Amino acid sequence: MEQLDIETPSVVIDLDIAEANIAKYQAYCDKLGLHLRPHVKTHKIPDLAKKQLAAGASGITCQKISEAEAMISEGGIDDILLTYNVLGQRKLHRLRQLSEKVRLSVVADNITCIKGLSETFHDAQTPLTVLVECDTGALRCGVVSPEEALELVQAIDRLPGIRFGGLMTYPPVGQADQINSFLETAKSLIEASGLAVDVVSIGGSPDMWRADQIPVGTEYRIGTYIYNDRSLIMQGTCEIKDCALTILATVVSTPTPNRAVIDAGSKSLTSDLSGLSGHGLVVGYPYLSIEKLSEEHGCITSDQPTGLKVGQQVHIIPNHACVVSNMVDHVVFTRQQKPVKTQPVIARGQVW
Amino acid sequence: MEQLDIETPSVVIDLDIAEANIAKYQAYCDKLGLHLRPHVKTHKIPDLAKKQLAAGASGITCQKISEAEAMISEGGIDDILLTYNVLGQRKLHRLRQLSEKVRLSVVADNITCIKGLSETFHDAQTPLTVLVECDTGALRCGVVSPEEALELVQAIDRLPGIRFGGLMTYPPVGQADQINSFLETAKSLIEASGLAVDVVSIGGSPDMWRADQIPVGTEYRIGTYIYNDRSLIMQGTCEIKDCALTILATVVSTPTPNRAVIDAGSKSLTSDLSGLSGHGLVVGYPYLSIEKLSEEHGCITSDQPTGLKVGQQVHIIPNHACVVSNMVDHVVFTRQQKPVKTQPVIARGQVW
Repeated sequence: MEQLDIETPSVVIDLDIAEANIAKYQAYCDKLGLHLRPHVKTHKIPDLAKKQLAAGASGITCQKISEAEAMISEGGIDDILLTYNVLGQRKLHRLRQLSEKVRLSVVADNITCIKGLSETFHDAQTPLTVLVECDTGALRCGVVSPEEALELVQAIDRLPGIRFGGLMTYPPVGQADQINSFLETAKSLIEASGLAVDVVSIGGSPDMWRADQIPVGTEYRIGTYIYNDRSLIMQGTCEIKDCALTILATVVSTPTPNRAVIDAGSKSLTSDLSGLSGHGLVVGYPYLSIEKLSEEHGCITSDQPTGLKVGQQVHIIPNHACVVSNMVDHVVFTRQQKPVKTQPVIARGQVW
Repeated sequence: MEQLDIETPSVVIDLDIAEANIAKYQAYCDKLGLHLRPHVKTHKIPDLAKKQLAAGASGITCQKISEAEAMISEGGIDDILLTYNVLGQRKLHRLRQLSEKVRLSVVADNITCIKGLSETFHDAQTPLTVLVECDTGALRCGVVSPEEALELVQAIDRLPGIRFGGLMTYPPVGQADQINSFLETAKSLIEASGLAVDVVSIGGSPDMWRADQIPVGTEYRIGTYIYNDRSLIMQGTCEIKDCALTILATVVSTPTPNRAVIDAGSKSLTSDLSGLSGHGLVVGYPYLSIEKLSEEHGCITSDQPTGLKVGQQVHIIPNHACVVSNMVDHVVFTRQQKPVKTQPVIARGQVW
């Protein structure tokens, strides 16, 4: 690849590839009759969310209120699922304000959270839609049994200001049967109690092409598919040519023929291994490994001469694209490998 | 600890502890007759750099030009060592501009870099001081033999616009003899060639209390000592009570008695393991482990009941403090455990 006339390290987004990724997965979901609700954590850029919505997505997913606030700051986004337990007066107040601007639903996995939502929305014109988060094996948030799910559903149904909207899970990888079985059982219990389960929200990138194995799902939440990354390449979910996000770096040192150092370290690539060894893939140099990172240095090693020269640019596909987006205030959009725009990452660093 | 009335997750800096850390290590260096040149990467806050200078530091260390630019944006800082190979027209131009504002020195480990510096400064009134970076075993940047160091020193001496200022190393941990021997040999070779070695810049947090074991050193570069962190606790360099930086988080879920989830994930704590297992230390709960992180979730496990409740705040000492500072636009300064100021992290994310 030719040298790009931009500063390094920079996060570069190939818009042609990103748009193709959006279209391809939307077509897959359309074919299954599954709603697609992209998680914006991967890009954190309203313009890209709008491309996802224009392609047919039914709304977006955000993880934190501040992320949602940033995503709607430019207008054009009106349906958000917030997949996080919201707690505390300040956050609940902001959630109420957010609900006055967009069609909003949230998740909850405990009664403290549900009571806080009810107290905050008890006098709202429209009740807040609450999905119950189920732990189908990922050992993160979520009730751990269908019976517990039913208990929370009944609490939601009983309390003012909120309404039960369905079930949501952050699913473990490669456990379709277990996920489907948990959610089917919970759904049956809830329906037997006289309540409808409008939405069953599933998701995850590694299993994105196996969504059909969880037929109980009505909606698929997914983030990374727009950019893809090394972890998805390694899992066979995509190929190098499908990766829209790369870090453009410069070789700053070649201490020995078999070692080189680039100007992208953990402040650019992050230390997220995503279960892999090495910190990214050097495009065009399959025999190189990014062995270790300091904050501003990436140390490349090889059992043969690296073939890299001081001053040369390299493109790195990171292990995990989402966490890289969070490191930078701006990315560079390219088309046909030419820079077309410097784009602020509007929802970067929004953890509140 | 009582609940703090601030949003979570937040990075909290106990100024009383930070100031004590500054004073303690300055006193140690003063006793050894060693110049202390703090690396600002740990805090990225000019006001804290000024506290370090006021306590007796001889200047600051920055890793990238943009970091230095941000650090001097408020005035009051006038001596910077940039410990990075600067390459490329744009960066060299900015380096020249920076040199007109502060007393500046840089490092280089290769001839391409040295030629670029010379071309950029050939008509400067004052030549740019260049230190030669030596790899004393850390396998990052640096010439790998004293003979190579001499070659670069002679190139610097020959070329216009730059002057040789000394040697610099990013040292491997626990290898004092090897470091001292490399630098002594290089120094002797250079002196034998008729040139003076004004500065021998060593450093590193893990070996901070063993600086006397590298007598060739004239200057110590160190970042983490101002905050300390879990990796330094585990190495015996400091204790929990010496840790000035914590992440204040809220428990958002307790799916089972032995598991809890906090609202700080890899976007706050980072995935930097620093060779440890687990993602930080939950202050006051020595039996808990932060087993895994998602971007916004920290999953805590224990072989006994966690003792945590939904809504409760916890303070986390991260594995590595420097990378945490880089995640946030603001930190909260406290005194006597009370918030006193929200402080922008002015040099956050500066990788250029």
